[in-house]
Amino acid sequence: MREAYHEQLGSIGTQLGDMCGLVSTAIEEATKALLQADLGIAEQVIGDDVKVDEIRSAAEEQSFNLLALQAPVAGDLRTVVSVIHIADDLERMGDLALHVAKAARRRHPQPVLPAEVAGYFEEMGRVAVLLAGQAEKVLREQDIELAAQMESTDDQMDDLHKHLFTLLMSPEWPHGVATAVDVTLLGRFYERFADHAVAVARRVIYVVTGSMPNIED
Amino acid sequence: MREAYHEQLGSIGTQLGDMCGLVSTAIEEATKALLQADLGIAEQVIGDDVKVDEIRSAAEEQSFNLLALQAPVAGDLRTVVSVIHIADDLERMGDLALHVAKAARRRHPQPVLPAEVAGYFEEMGRVAVLLAGQAEKVLREQDIELAAQMESTDDQMDDLHKHLFTLLMSPEWPHGVATAVDVTLLGRFYERFADHAVAVARRVIYVVTGSMPNIED
Repeated sequence: MREAYHEQLGSIGTQLGDMCGLVSTAIEEATKALLQADLGIAEQVIGDDVKVDEIRSAAEEQSFNLLALQAPVAGDLRTVVSVIHIADDLERMGDLALHVAKAARRRHPQPVLPAEVAGYFEEMGRVAVLLAGQAEKVLREQDIELAAQMESTDDQMDDLHKHLFTLLMSPEWPHGVATAVDVTLLGRFYERFADHAVAVARRVIYVVTGSMPNIED
Repeated sequence: MREAYHEQLGSIGTQLGDMCGLVSTAIEEATKALLQADLGIAEQVIGDDVKVDEIRSAAEEQSFNLLALQAPVAGDLRTVVSVIHIADDLERMGDLALHVAKAARRRHPQPVLPAEVAGYFEEMGRVAVLLAGQAEKVLREQDIELAAQMESTDDQMDDLHKHLFTLLMSPEWPHGVATAVDVTLLGRFYERFADHAVAVARRVIYVVTGSMPNIED
């Protein structure tokens, strides 16, 4: 019974790792679509989001069955409940990558971003892909040292986001309001993507250590 | 055993109802702080968010204990898993109300909103409070007819949000970029608040009927 349980749990862990790999690709490709105004890539990201949702449903169903059939307690139960939260976070990361791709599609063939801020989004994209890749490794290997390091990677995202806002808010912003609105929302999507990656890492720390790292809003 | 189980589950249900009441008050007061540039009210909302977080922790801990000690199956298990999701949504609604209050505080004593868009936010605030109130009733009374009606109330929010963006994006927007950035983010906070209220209602439908209404992104 316990062996079957751990096999099933291992299989859900693999699914979460796969799901994290998909959202990592999604944000990487969505960033490309955004920076290169590439409609084909945007459509690909938009079409692929269903895969994330499918794995999420499967993981949630399997967690439910584990709870119903195996009635886990203590650390095992903590793991299954965490799977439910992590699947939520990963699905949301997929949605945010989707929003980026949709912004690229909406403005096509115009680029969404003026050259002046493209560099920020290249960097935010890089940090988002880095965080998603780290979250995947944390999920697959239960690497809680790496999980803790992700907080400082997330600080990079917050810094980029703050600088972007300073630029937007300055009286010298030359690109008009409509562009500023797009840039504001896109900046928010990347920042939230990073927050969810860190939330995944925190959940893994909780699974492994039994205590939740402090959460800032 | 089963009786103790249902008592505990009832107590968590009451907690979620209370939590929903708190976030309803939070968004109502945050909207007041925003529209009246009232620092005192903004501070109150910001200070009160910890209460939402406390109930959320308590509800999550009790769900965990129910799973560990009672090993519920079928409909009972569905309920407990849904509690975990609902507590997530409600906490996020609290965070979004907090973001609105912080925007009001950040710009104080200046109003955040130009008079021209204040009416939109008055309306979005009204719809947000309505949805949170409906979600509370849905939680307390398992009223799935009302839960289904919330979709069309949410459509009102989406319409307001779209109109607001049309206004922002028009070449005649006279209030500059910095204001547009604030308005963009605030609009997003109300829209997301409404989405989470609807997600709560959908979960209750799932608990009662056993099947999840279709979720659009």
